[in-house]
Amino acid sequence: MAQTQPMKDLAAARAKTSFPVHDLTRYIHGSDEKIARRRELAALVANDPVFSNDKRTGLSRVQDVKQGLAMSLRLYQLKEEHKLSQEDFLTCMDFVDELLPIGLHETAFIPVIYAQGSEEQAKYWGPLAEKHQIIGCYAQTEIGHGSNLSELETTATLDRDSDQWIIHSTTFTASKFWIGGLGVICTHALIQARLIIDGKDYGAHGFIVPIRSLKDHRPFPGVKVGDIGPKAYGGFSKIDNGFVRFDKHPIPRENMLMRFAKVTKDGQYVKPPHSKLAYGSMVLLRSHMVRGAATTLARAATIATRYTTVRRQFKVPTSRKDVVNPSLETQVINYPMVQARLFPMIAQIYAILAAGNTMREMYNSMLSELMNGDISSLAEVHAISSGLKSTCSTIAATGVEDCRKLMGGHGYSYFSGISHIWSTYVPSNTYEGDNFLLTQQSARYLLKQISLATTEPEKVTPYSRYVIKTIDQDAFQAERCAVQEPVDWLRPEIQLAAFEHRAGRLVADLALAAIPMQDGSIVWSDLNLECWRLCHAHSQYVLARSAIEGVASARSQGLAKETILVLKRLSDLFALHTIQASLGDYLEDFYLSPPQCQSLRLQIKKLQESLADDVVGLMDAFDFDDHFLNSALGSFDGNAYQHLWDSVQKEEINQTEVVDGYKEYIAPILNQHGPAKL
Amino acid sequence: MAQTQPMKDLAAARAKTSFPVHDLTRYIHGSDEKIARRRELAALVANDPVFSNDKRTGLSRVQDVKQGLAMSLRLYQLKEEHKLSQEDFLTCMDFVDELLPIGLHETAFIPVIYAQGSEEQAKYWGPLAEKHQIIGCYAQTEIGHGSNLSELETTATLDRDSDQWIIHSTTFTASKFWIGGLGVICTHALIQARLIIDGKDYGAHGFIVPIRSLKDHRPFPGVKVGDIGPKAYGGFSKIDNGFVRFDKHPIPRENMLMRFAKVTKDGQYVKPPHSKLAYGSMVLLRSHMVRGAATTLARAATIATRYTTVRRQFKVPTSRKDVVNPSLETQVINYPMVQARLFPMIAQIYAILAAGNTMREMYNSMLSELMNGDISSLAEVHAISSGLKSTCSTIAATGVEDCRKLMGGHGYSYFSGISHIWSTYVPSNTYEGDNFLLTQQSARYLLKQISLATTEPEKVTPYSRYVIKTIDQDAFQAERCAVQEPVDWLRPEIQLAAFEHRAGRLVADLALAAIPMQDGSIVWSDLNLECWRLCHAHSQYVLARSAIEGVASARSQGLAKETILVLKRLSDLFALHTIQASLGDYLEDFYLSPPQCQSLRLQIKKLQESLADDVVGLMDAFDFDDHFLNSALGSFDGNAYQHLWDSVQKEEINQTEVVDGYKEYIAPILNQHGPAKL
Repeated sequence: MAQTQPMKDLAAARAKTSFPVHDLTRYIHGSDEKIARRRELAALVANDPVFSNDKRTGLSRVQDVKQGLAMSLRLYQLKEEHKLSQEDFLTCMDFVDELLPIGLHETAFIPVIYAQGSEEQAKYWGPLAEKHQIIGCYAQTEIGHGSNLSELETTATLDRDSDQWIIHSTTFTASKFWIGGLGVICTHALIQARLIIDGKDYGAHGFIVPIRSLKDHRPFPGVKVGDIGPKAYGGFSKIDNGFVRFDKHPIPRENMLMRFAKVTKDGQYVKPPHSKLAYGSMVLLRSHMVRGAATTLARAATIATRYTTVRRQFKVPTSRKDVVNPSLETQVINYPMVQARLFPMIAQIYAILAAGNTMREMYNSMLSELMNGDISSLAEVHAISSGLKSTCSTIAATGVEDCRKLMGGHGYSYFSGISHIWSTYVPSNTYEGDNFLLTQQSARYLLKQISLATTEPEKVTPYSRYVIKTIDQDAFQAERCAVQEPVDWLRPEIQLAAFEHRAGRLVADLALAAIPMQDGSIVWSDLNLECWRLCHAHSQYVLARSAIEGVASARSQGLAKETILVLKRLSDLFALHTIQASLGDYLEDFYLSPPQCQSLRLQIKKLQESLADDVVGLMDAFDFDDHFLNSALGSFDGNAYQHLWDSVQKEEINQTEVVDGYKEYIAPILNQHGPAKL
Repeated sequence: MAQTQPMKDLAAARAKTSFPVHDLTRYIHGSDEKIARRRELAALVANDPVFSNDKRTGLSRVQDVKQGLAMSLRLYQLKEEHKLSQEDFLTCMDFVDELLPIGLHETAFIPVIYAQGSEEQAKYWGPLAEKHQIIGCYAQTEIGHGSNLSELETTATLDRDSDQWIIHSTTFTASKFWIGGLGVICTHALIQARLIIDGKDYGAHGFIVPIRSLKDHRPFPGVKVGDIGPKAYGGFSKIDNGFVRFDKHPIPRENMLMRFAKVTKDGQYVKPPHSKLAYGSMVLLRSHMVRGAATTLARAATIATRYTTVRRQFKVPTSRKDVVNPSLETQVINYPMVQARLFPMIAQIYAILAAGNTMREMYNSMLSELMNGDISSLAEVHAISSGLKSTCSTIAATGVEDCRKLMGGHGYSYFSGISHIWSTYVPSNTYEGDNFLLTQQSARYLLKQISLATTEPEKVTPYSRYVIKTIDQDAFQAERCAVQEPVDWLRPEIQLAAFEHRAGRLVADLALAAIPMQDGSIVWSDLNLECWRLCHAHSQYVLARSAIEGVASARSQGLAKETILVLKRLSDLFALHTIQASLGDYLEDFYLSPPQCQSLRLQIKKLQESLADDVVGLMDAFDFDDHFLNSALGSFDGNAYQHLWDSVQKEEINQTEVVDGYKEYIAPILNQHGPAKL
């Protein structure tokens, strides 16, 4: 096929890459074996007609859900045909890139049965669920309660006579709502309900509740269940988020999950031994979400980087020379306004990736400590994972939409591929802890550290040690940034000192503001803005530190020096761009002087210029295949306009010369005042 | 019907309003007569089954477009049945709240024929179009060119023998793309094409080009036309944005629009007398977009304000007392984190509304000047309208999505109503001038003013007079904010001085940076970040000034003193919140001191508290009816959960007990490993 100009442009950009791309792919995905396996699984999905990208959009809600069911079945068939491990199966599900009706069965229902069921329960329900002879969902939120789970209104009341729980929606707002897999597919639901024995309320516990008959899939009497309908922005279109309302629905006493709390045959409630152990799985989930934020944003940035490389607009010179053909219009990626938005985003992607690695290591080491009964690191790991989840998923959601804006008019076509990524990703800012609320937990944790700093400074946790410096307020207020010339900004210790100072100041301010009232309580809700600022400042510190440590780790892994150099530039750009975003705080504190702000901007500009030849390679390194990218504008070959044109031609609406609706509507419009006399 | 708690909450909030709401409604919509007419037209649409909100979503692309056609026909029927004026007809189309296939016929094709057609052409084509005996679209952008219209590749070449233009797509990238109404409905297109006579290229001109036969709606030979498919985020779902590619399609010479440039029968090209007159309509369009930004954001904020008033979550005290029942959970709107996001947005809405009024007045006075051949104000009005369009539509798009985030989990339901608003609005950041590119024009205009300030300061235009102060650099750099105590922040002259100082500094900096190269040219593209910052700073100044003048105008219109007080608070909050967002700039410049920053924050907090009782009324004042809001969560009665539940129950997918797809997909999943043995 003839090389079009866009194809030449992308190839030329690729040729300029200064480092071996595969080196970085290995750094991202772990090993050559893992890369190879990923590619095999990606191809398995890409080559299957059920997962074709051509027929995924423009469907009605009923068709969408039906397609979600078809994809679910096909995935199970592939698992069987190719003897896929559970891990490989979940990777394939990721490559399908749709929230599916079976998604939460696999990622929530099964794990929770093993985590919260007794050994006996795990043995009974586990295999049934793994062989999907039953399909479950995880039903927590209600129409009236999302964030505040302590006020859930669904009840499970012990009926001693029948030895059953009576599951009941006590009020209208008790209706379970938003539950993935509940709408049409599930046979069982893991219901969080208030456990009540003899009128005493023991709070929310988990129960396995049959929803639909295994015989004919009809809901049981006393169970009003259905789909909650379309979601915003066309997101979550193939999954059946559902509602359920119970009218005194009885289930066996043994269906309560009893690994921790128990209720005996004679109706005795037995308390769980440890209440904090359940935090572990939340930490793991949020850690995954940190890495997910990086890969999601990377996908959008891959598309935007490629398209802005091939898109040319305006014959105006830029200082950056066009190597392909100076007589052509300017490549959009050469405009400073585009670089200033895109390049720091790429730096954020790599910083979040590094933080994901940090989280994984923290989680693993915490896990082995927990095995030995040591819960000392749990609080810090939980606080960091909450804060990072909030900060990183906010960055990613904003960034994906920024990618669309970078792509001008065509970015608004569904075929740009950004729409699907963003509309599916954006609710992650709300689920698994609302991003605004999570910051409260993280901030309160830091407050504990600052109070520890005055009494037992040696006990302050590793990522909070900067709070110690705030104790001597005079010395802390006299702290100044050590930058003397622009190049000093590239020193990691100078960068980290700035992050530490800002977070330190915010935690000290919060400690001052959090004055207990007469009854000893603090009106936290009045401080939630301050908590929010502190939490993000702390997360930014963790991100900057992870990025710096990531460069060191790349060095110790023996990556090529060119690769290490580009990772160092990204780490620098992340740090400096993030500092720049809070210049007001630094200036108000006299930590930075106006000339230092000037030199900061200069250094950021230099870093961006130094990355210009590498951004295509930096995105290629993620190794997304075209099927998964699902973008006419961001494909590997760069042939954006042709792919856009081809996608459009395949549309159902273009298969007839005259549209369905002509006789019914168009002709009557044209003839309302009689036919035209031309 | 029994009052539910949410209904009581909203009623209680409404009862606390400190000012007469109708007073403000009159201020917004003009007069009691206009309010009454608006309500009649809104009811006309709301009561017509074709425009029912129940069946608008969850449709396939083909069904969506068909519904768009049905709505188009119904609108024309209503026009006839109720003898609607064109203005009332367009208001009804607004209330339908969908981009429709006939939309651009009415708002672009018809006006352009009258604006750019000769008298003879207007007489011939105008009535045909007004009676929609032909349906037109306006075809400018191509697949390869959106922003840069000077490089359009479609040609209209004069064939002297046949006295015809030959319309031709010279390359693949010349295909017209994104054209609303072109996909399935239009019979004619107003094509922008390069006019070529005897090999000489005269640049882009407009031509009326027949696309589909009036007999059977089939495209003419040489015309490949169709729909460009789905757009991002489910937006623009009912309109047929289309593509067209011409293969030497002949049209009569007289089909060139000849009000300005002409081509005579013997093939002579006659130049247009004035080139700048066409700017007028662009200014008008962008002025409308300023007001549109306010009303669009107001709609989303109405929903968010009402829902956060009725949503209760967490039993934590806030300093703001719950008047309804202190034993209930806290109303979400009482959290400072919510107020800090929502209240400044409401202030932005009113500032943008005031700027819309400013623009209208400027446009009208410019128009009467133009009639007298005076083009002196054109440049300023054009620059301000470009800048405001960019700033205001950015604020509105960001704000609408922020409203969704304020609404937590349920915000992501389609039934929140935010999704439709945002997905339809967000492309306005790109069309009618990309928001990033527009800032370049506006900034260059200000540079001209600063150079004028040194030579002929009396000629500097009214909204740019602050540049004069920058000429004496020493005095300018010594400028300091006059605030001594928090209350000083409420003085309009102090607020405006801050905006003027910041914009002045940015224009002076840009003048220094814009150093011509040896050939006298300036590499503008290297400065586009600086232009962007300057343009927004200037727009913010115009907004703040308009808000302040709006309060004065409300006073002179005789509004109640309570209404004026609340408008003054909004104006203050807009100014202070906007200044706060650029604290870094002010501190770096020593214009603000750290204690002034402290007092600024304090004053913002006070303003927010003072508005807390009025936000529901401030949104009610826009007088949006429930059908137009189309939000289960934001309806006037506040019964959010019940409406959400009811919307869900109506979904097609919930009309059967067992989903379509059970036998085909679910049963095979459940039985892949044999049936469950329970």
